[in-house]
Amino acid sequence: MKKTEKMTPKEIRALIRKGEWQRPTSGLALGYAQANLVVLPKKYAFDFLLFCQRNPKPCPLLEVLDAGKYITEILAAGADITTDLPLYNVYKNGKLISTIQNVENLWQDDFVTFLLGCSYSFEEALLKVKVPVRHIEEEKNVPMYITHITCRQAGIFKGPLVVSMRPIPENLLVKAVNITSRYAAVHGAPVHIGNPLKIGIKDIHKPDFGDAVTIRTGEVPVFWACGVTPQAAVMEAKPDICITHAPGHMFISDILNEELASI
Amino acid sequence: MKKTEKMTPKEIRALIRKGEWQRPTSGLALGYAQANLVVLPKKYAFDFLLFCQRNPKPCPLLEVLDAGKYITEILAAGADITTDLPLYNVYKNGKLISTIQNVENLWQDDFVTFLLGCSYSFEEALLKVKVPVRHIEEEKNVPMYITHITCRQAGIFKGPLVVSMRPIPENLLVKAVNITSRYAAVHGAPVHIGNPLKIGIKDIHKPDFGDAVTIRTGEVPVFWACGVTPQAAVMEAKPDICITHAPGHMFISDILNEELASI
Repeated sequence: MKKTEKMTPKEIRALIRKGEWQRPTSGLALGYAQANLVVLPKKYAFDFLLFCQRNPKPCPLLEVLDAGKYITEILAAGADITTDLPLYNVYKNGKLISTIQNVENLWQDDFVTFLLGCSYSFEEALLKVKVPVRHIEEEKNVPMYITHITCRQAGIFKGPLVVSMRPIPENLLVKAVNITSRYAAVHGAPVHIGNPLKIGIKDIHKPDFGDAVTIRTGEVPVFWACGVTPQAAVMEAKPDICITHAPGHMFISDILNEELASI
Repeated sequence: MKKTEKMTPKEIRALIRKGEWQRPTSGLALGYAQANLVVLPKKYAFDFLLFCQRNPKPCPLLEVLDAGKYITEILAAGADITTDLPLYNVYKNGKLISTIQNVENLWQDDFVTFLLGCSYSFEEALLKVKVPVRHIEEEKNVPMYITHITCRQAGIFKGPLVVSMRPIPENLLVKAVNITSRYAAVHGAPVHIGNPLKIGIKDIHKPDFGDAVTIRTGEVPVFWACGVTPQAAVMEAKPDICITHAPGHMFISDILNEELASI
């Protein structure tokens, strides 16, 4: 069998579909964009689409499927949303009820699928220009924090902006801002540089999600809008049913990260 | 009375609200973004929002109001959508039934308001860096063409991409691309440079909307996605009722064009 690091996105999705890859997707199909998944019944779809339109930094939409459709067109030709992610979370009334390998049997004709950009894309861009990404170096989850910045509400969806943090050496701050600004489709430019208190983070060493990482002397904490924001807003709204990817088990697209860059 | 060219957007909107300005808004509140208006009943709103998400170049959303709301929050604090544009078109089942100065009496609790970016913003940016804008020089309407490029359909909304054309001197092509690329919120980079036939335009001298303009020797026709695209898609879908701005009679926002630029 071909080694996974040499496989195309399509080959990896086929492997996942057969149930032969159930682990996180980090490091797979390098160079290709991965996406967050949110599936909601149609009755919630306008509100959620509007929430994304009003909060594009935490909720950068890459593709929305018509109600009932589970085959992608833009991010990949013919990928199947119900089988092509390694692991799914199923929520009922805001509570996680199961974590499963495919959602074929749960599919409803009124389900609307949203695929949102993910920070893996801009982290690759940072690494390419030699800006360090600490949680990758330390083999941890990125640290994430609930801020006191409020998202713009849309119908039943509301909540605080959640950010991810990467410590950046002072002399690379400009480069980190410039490179991530090119990637508006995957969270884009930082939302804050420096003092965590200014955005309501009391203890940088105690993230609300993920793991704390080392901040070295001469490094500044830099905060980007995070894809946990829409997930938190969805859970808080307690829809009858909602399906998402399980953390780290993303949708692997056929789109190169570089294709998502603006310039 | 203060001269209109010195008036702030808020002062001009107040004048319009009192019925004292019923002419086109071109040239008013220079430096500030103007916006296209589309108002639709809620039952069409998800499809239209999705049409904009799928076709961001012709349909760059700047603000969407909640159903029933007619006071803006993002583009201006407290502007009234029902009174603050100089002239409105009212369509029923895809047919223009009236052109009126305010729509207070027509307002319905289920109306959803969409405000979309307008090319005035990037034309100002072109002029600032001395790229000529021919239809302004010749005091005409910008020439617009129906292309053979198909928009991505969303529910009942579909149709061809409509483009506007500006002839650009060869030595300024790069500048014209670069400067408009910064303005993704107002149509952004061109969709095509050069041969009109390649995008299905048979006679550059016979635009489908607006006026033909002079193309001089050494100039290349450059095509940008145009705000007529969503309007045409809406008319084609024949909703029970739809309200838009009358052509050229735009919503004047409090946002500077420069604030819409990405870099």
